[in-house]
Amino acid sequence: MRNILLCATFMLLSLVAHAQQALWGSPSLLSPEIHPDNTVTFRYRAPKAVRVQVTGDFLPQGQVAELIEVDGIWQYTTPQALHPELYSYSFIVDGVKAYDPNNVYLIRDVATVTNVFLISGDRASLYAINDVPHGTVSKVWYNSETLGLQRRLSIYTPAGYETSNKRYPVFYLLHGMGGDENAWLELGRTSQILDNLIAQGKAEPMIVVMTNGNAALEAAPGESSLGFAPPTINLPKTMEGSFETAFPEVVSFVDKHYRTIRKKDARAIAGLSMGGFHSLHISKQYPDKFGYIGLFSAAITSDRGGDSPIYKDTDAKLKKQFAMNPKLYWIAIGKTDFLYQANTEYRKLLDEKGYPYTYYESEDGHIWKNWRIYLTEFVPLLFKK
Amino acid sequence: MRNILLCATFMLLSLVAHAQQALWGSPSLLSPEIHPDNTVTFRYRAPKAVRVQVTGDFLPQGQVAELIEVDGIWQYTTPQALHPELYSYSFIVDGVKAYDPNNVYLIRDVATVTNVFLISGDRASLYAINDVPHGTVSKVWYNSETLGLQRRLSIYTPAGYETSNKRYPVFYLLHGMGGDENAWLELGRTSQILDNLIAQGKAEPMIVVMTNGNAALEAAPGESSLGFAPPTINLPKTMEGSFETAFPEVVSFVDKHYRTIRKKDARAIAGLSMGGFHSLHISKQYPDKFGYIGLFSAAITSDRGGDSPIYKDTDAKLKKQFAMNPKLYWIAIGKTDFLYQANTEYRKLLDEKGYPYTYYESEDGHIWKNWRIYLTEFVPLLFKK
Repeated sequence: MRNILLCATFMLLSLVAHAQQALWGSPSLLSPEIHPDNTVTFRYRAPKAVRVQVTGDFLPQGQVAELIEVDGIWQYTTPQALHPELYSYSFIVDGVKAYDPNNVYLIRDVATVTNVFLISGDRASLYAINDVPHGTVSKVWYNSETLGLQRRLSIYTPAGYETSNKRYPVFYLLHGMGGDENAWLELGRTSQILDNLIAQGKAEPMIVVMTNGNAALEAAPGESSLGFAPPTINLPKTMEGSFETAFPEVVSFVDKHYRTIRKKDARAIAGLSMGGFHSLHISKQYPDKFGYIGLFSAAITSDRGGDSPIYKDTDAKLKKQFAMNPKLYWIAIGKTDFLYQANTEYRKLLDEKGYPYTYYESEDGHIWKNWRIYLTEFVPLLFKK
Repeated sequence: MRNILLCATFMLLSLVAHAQQALWGSPSLLSPEIHPDNTVTFRYRAPKAVRVQVTGDFLPQGQVAELIEVDGIWQYTTPQALHPELYSYSFIVDGVKAYDPNNVYLIRDVATVTNVFLISGDRASLYAINDVPHGTVSKVWYNSETLGLQRRLSIYTPAGYETSNKRYPVFYLLHGMGGDENAWLELGRTSQILDNLIAQGKAEPMIVVMTNGNAALEAAPGESSLGFAPPTINLPKTMEGSFETAFPEVVSFVDKHYRTIRKKDARAIAGLSMGGFHSLHISKQYPDKFGYIGLFSAAITSDRGGDSPIYKDTDAKLKKQFAMNPKLYWIAIGKTDFLYQANTEYRKLLDEKGYPYTYYESEDGHIWKNWRIYLTEFVPLLFKK
């Protein structure tokens, strides 16, 4: 028996490792290489290419950098150290976008996939997986009777939830147009940010519910009965009232399936861009439901069709909402965001009415870097006793 | 107020959709295109390339197909319809591997990323997300005192688990060398297969626990405190006894945190390749724990170091295991698997000892196609009353 169990050798094991699953070979270059001084080298093997460039959010918007070829390997090193941050990038090979075949880390955002890398440190250390207690991340389906669909949620429960027998406050966190219930987890680093802020004692343990704000869809691309169909960008039910109308179902589902504190001051809602628009309208439509509201680079605008009751009687609804004294109404926007002016006008309106809010202004524009920053700023303000 | 909320227009909304997140543009070609007759066309834009090929498991192993260029767009259509299956593929552009920039669906397997597409139908309709009740998939961390690490599990709970108040049997499902706790969900389509088999009444509702079998690691690449480091293939603690020794911790954790039926005949363990090796050794090491055992293309071999007590006294342990009458000992292998001979010898040994087992032989070799087939065959055999 021992002989049989010993019949295979190191060679066999090595074969297993290579033949088993990795059908087309492993990465052969180190790319990106993050140097100790936080400069970064990108490499791409393409002996026959004429031009290889790299683009990404480590460069000023719209810029590309040229790689230089030596022996078929193209290379570019950033002249300066990069600030700690989660970065996305792609190569452009003879004018055609190419992923980095030596970096297995890719994130899909809307209909675009890019490679990513993380430089930890400063605020970005909140985006890293550190040796702290980790919450659970679940993909959960609920039945939306209003929308006539099974729909998927991402739900973060904090470390200890399963055995604590405690009840927890709930933070509803909404994505932007074209995003989905994965967006805040993947580019938003929500579970890492929550794990780290809670471990540092800077945030209360809370449940975070990440919905899919495209009310025509069951779930993120690749995760619904549409299968691996190409993602659709222009969706019919995004900012026309369906999502807001159906939102109480989500709250009911979460309150039924999780140990939640079922009251206004134990509920927050925030979202980025379209999700900020949704948060604005949901929080005023159901003024007794949310004690904390966050508008991150909010798409302050009306509906497309204009005929949903959600968008009617805005003045009266806001008046009622603020009369009920939400604990926090938080507005954040980047200085170069194309929605800056719309947000300024909305703040002016709140000022005129005397409705209190907190304002946070950042550098840069309508980008994930800012939404991660806003999340790290907003979460510590929630549910304080 | 209404004016302000109406200030942005369709144009603005369109800008949001494009500027918000998708920094580098959307796919511009349809690739792969699955035609109604299940032939498939692959397309790649590369006006300056000299040669573009496609490789993948829709072709005989080791083969590539040549794309033909017209106006800068390279194209290849399969001459025959493809059988329903989940397929992986990559392009080779002038000798360099390239992902398909027009297909946002990629799966990382070990250190290799490939694009995927699914042709539903026949058995592969079990791999699709159909309009049936969906279970919950969670990423859960537990503390391994034995290994001195926080470690991550993927856990599937069947539809209705949250509100049924019932207890459920548990199926521990293990990956191969270099895989991780995501592998069975992503290439294995476990949650889809379970959802569909349960909905069809072909499988009992059960909890499925997918561990990380690399005992030196916390979690899958990109999901641990190693961050976005390049994945490591040759890991120190894979087939030397650590994982098997620490396995009872996993069972204890699951039994503590989930509504499980805590007895042998309500527990199954199975795994592919290295996971089959683990299942063999775990089930004989703890003969009172698992009523159902599945060896999928199992790496029937001994440890590397050979000194773990897990691998000692195999004859006596097997004797004890079979004396306790497991409900099912299931062995599956493909005809061209490089482990076919080792499995044949192991079956011969079981035959000689008169230990009962069920044997399932498939076409093909050591590939995910087979492991999905084995899962669909094995799961309906579990926990029948």
